[in-house]
This record gives sequence, structure tokens and C-alpha cells, in this order.
Amino acid sequence: MLAASALENLIEALKRLPGVGQKSAQRMAYHLLQHDREGARQMAKALSTATESIGHCQRCHTFSETELCLICSDGARDARLLCVVETPADQAALERTGSYRGYYFVLLGRLSPLDGIGAREIGAEELLARAAQTEVEEVILASSFTAEGEATAHVLAEALRSRGIKATRLARGVPVGSELEYVDLGTIAHALSDRR
Amino acid sequence: MLAASALENLIEALKRLPGVGQKSAQRMAYHLLQHDREGARQMAKALSTATESIGHCQRCHTFSETELCLICSDGARDARLLCVVETPADQAALERTGSYRGYYFVLLGRLSPLDGIGAREIGAEELLARAAQTEVEEVILASSFTAEGEATAHVLAEALRSRGIKATRLARGVPVGSELEYVDLGTIAHALSDRR
Repeated sequence: MLAASALENLIEALKRLPGVGQKSAQRMAYHLLQHDREGARQMAKALSTATESIGHCQRCHTFSETELCLICSDGARDARLLCVVETPADQAALERTGSYRGYYFVLLGRLSPLDGIGAREIGAEELLARAAQTEVEEVILASSFTAEGEATAHVLAEALRSRGIKATRLARGVPVGSELEYVDLGTIAHALSDRR
Repeated sequence: MLAASALENLIEALKRLPGVGQKSAQRMAYHLLQHDREGARQMAKALSTATESIGHCQRCHTFSETELCLICSDGARDARLLCVVETPADQAALERTGSYRGYYFVLLGRLSPLDGIGAREIGAEELLARAAQTEVEEVILASSFTAEGEATAHVLAEALRSRGIKATRLARGVPVGSELEYVDLGTIAHALSDRR
């Protein structure tokens, strides 16, 4: 009765964003229409451009507008290191640390058999082929420290080692700036056993 | 270095949504690109359509694709009642209760002099003209029960009464389903003084 159909469509579309339900979508739609029509136009354009022009890097599978992403086409990086991450967001986080100069391989997911995500979906085949290239000396497994991320790292480490490729995992331990009293026990136990 | 510019643009655009910061925008962009490109296309289309086709109803100022909104052009409603709300969202909430059959006037804001929102911005002039129409017998002020909403209601009530128009306010009281123990004291005090 009340809502115009263009408004309903907009609310439905906004609900497809992760973490956005009916109420938030409504608030967003009203906000855009009432206070920021320029923002709405800009968003429409950015969405169209992104879906049209952003594909995946053929070598590392991250998002890229070109066949090879900026990192993969940068010849000055350390070709002996290959870091395996779950998502482009994880890759971005590692890049921001400024302490890694090797290349990446982005799984675009993690092993989760119940959701139908197996070795093929995360590109395990391509990763093994990439890691087998002569210049790669070490594969750093930087998948999440969740149950699924650990399983993914385990499976990939097994496969890599069986092919004679060195596979390492990011260190587990106490986060920088935290007081021991407030760190969870599993983390402390790991930090203790991995002491150096 | 990492991000492709179309991706950066998308993240910047998503940050214009209310309540969405850098992290959420990034997560939304990655989600759309990785899992829901169809949703992204749909959203781009809905945004364009909405900004092009949704304007304001000439009589009640709510969002409308036509000159008069569906409610204002519905001759079967009770023309003696005019309900003043802050936003189309508030209007939608009132409509959903199913217990109001009059017309509306949407302020599209509330008085907030510090933000430069005065009587002109909320269309007080048009409201008074609308309320002065012979068939209107009562104006129900349904602005929010916040400081600014109360101020808005107060100013409008004064103006309406000085013109001899009856102005009422939504009842304040204990919300349905709540236990008295957990209701704030201001609400209980109001419910007590407005007892019936």
C-alpha cells in the first residue's frame, strides 16, 4: 500500500549485502533518497563498473582488473616465497603490514565439505602447480586460525610436503599489546609450546 | 598497491551508506564480487531506478513515484485526521499498525537549529496550509519522543493551536509487553500522569 515499487526494489537489493536485514536496508534506502542521492548514483556506477571490470588474476586468483594483478606482475618481489591466504581481504591485511615481499595465492574460500567447498573449489590443483615452479622455495600457509582454516592449512601442507615442497604456517601466539591475564588459554598453551 | 581502482571506488561508494565504515564496506564489496555478482547488478539497477523515479508526494511530502502518493490519492481515507510524522519510515510503521485511516504529512526531518534545520526545512508552512483545509479537524503530532522530536511537536502544536486547529500528540506510556520493573522511570512517570 505505502511503498512505491522502486523503493521496495531498492530495499530488497540492499538486503543482499552481508549483515543487512530489513530494518537496516530500509534505513539505508531512506537515507540515500533523503540525504544522499549523489551517493546513490555514485554507488550504482561503482557497482556496475566493478561487476563488469573486476575479474580474477590468472596466477594468484585475487581480484584484478587485468589478467595478472599488480603484485603478480611486479617482477621485483621475492619469487622464493608464496603465501596462501583465504581471501583478498586477508591478502590486503598482509600487504599492509609491509613485512612480506613474496607472492600470494588466494584460495577464495576454505575447505568446508558440508558447504560443498572441496579442494577443487579453493583451487588446490592450481596452487600445487604454482608451488612446484622451480623458484618457489617455501609456501607460507596463512589461512585463518579457525577450525576450517586449520583444516585447510593441514590438507595443503600434507599435499605440498608429499611433493617435497617446504610448507610453513603463520606463528600462533600472544597478540601484540595484550596482557597475558586476558588472553585465552588455548593461545597461551600454543605460545608456550612454540616458544623461541 | 593491491587494490584495483574499481574495487576502491566500490568500497568508497559503499562507505556512504549509514553505519558502514571501511571494514564493513570492504566486507560488502568482497562479498558481492566473490559470491553475489547478480546481487551487485540488481543493486546497481535498483539504485539508478530509485534515484531517477522516486520524488516526493506534492501533498504529504513522502517518497512517491507519482505526483500524489498512494495514500493521498486514496479518497476513501478519513480526511478529518492528519498525522504528522518525521520520516517515511515512521509513516510506514504507523501504516503497518492498521489502526490509522487518516492522511499524513511527512516532515522529512525534525527541528534542529544547530544543524540548520528550521521551520522552512521541515515544511511547516505547507503543513499549516494543509491543516487549514476545511475538512481537517485534528492534527496528530507523531514526531519522535526524543528531545528534538518533542521540540518539533511543541512548536507545531503552538502554531496549529494559534490558528484554532486542534493538535494532539501520541500517548506516552508503558510499551505493550513490558514489565514495569524494567521500564525507565521517565516513562513510568508519564504513564502515571497520563493515566486514564
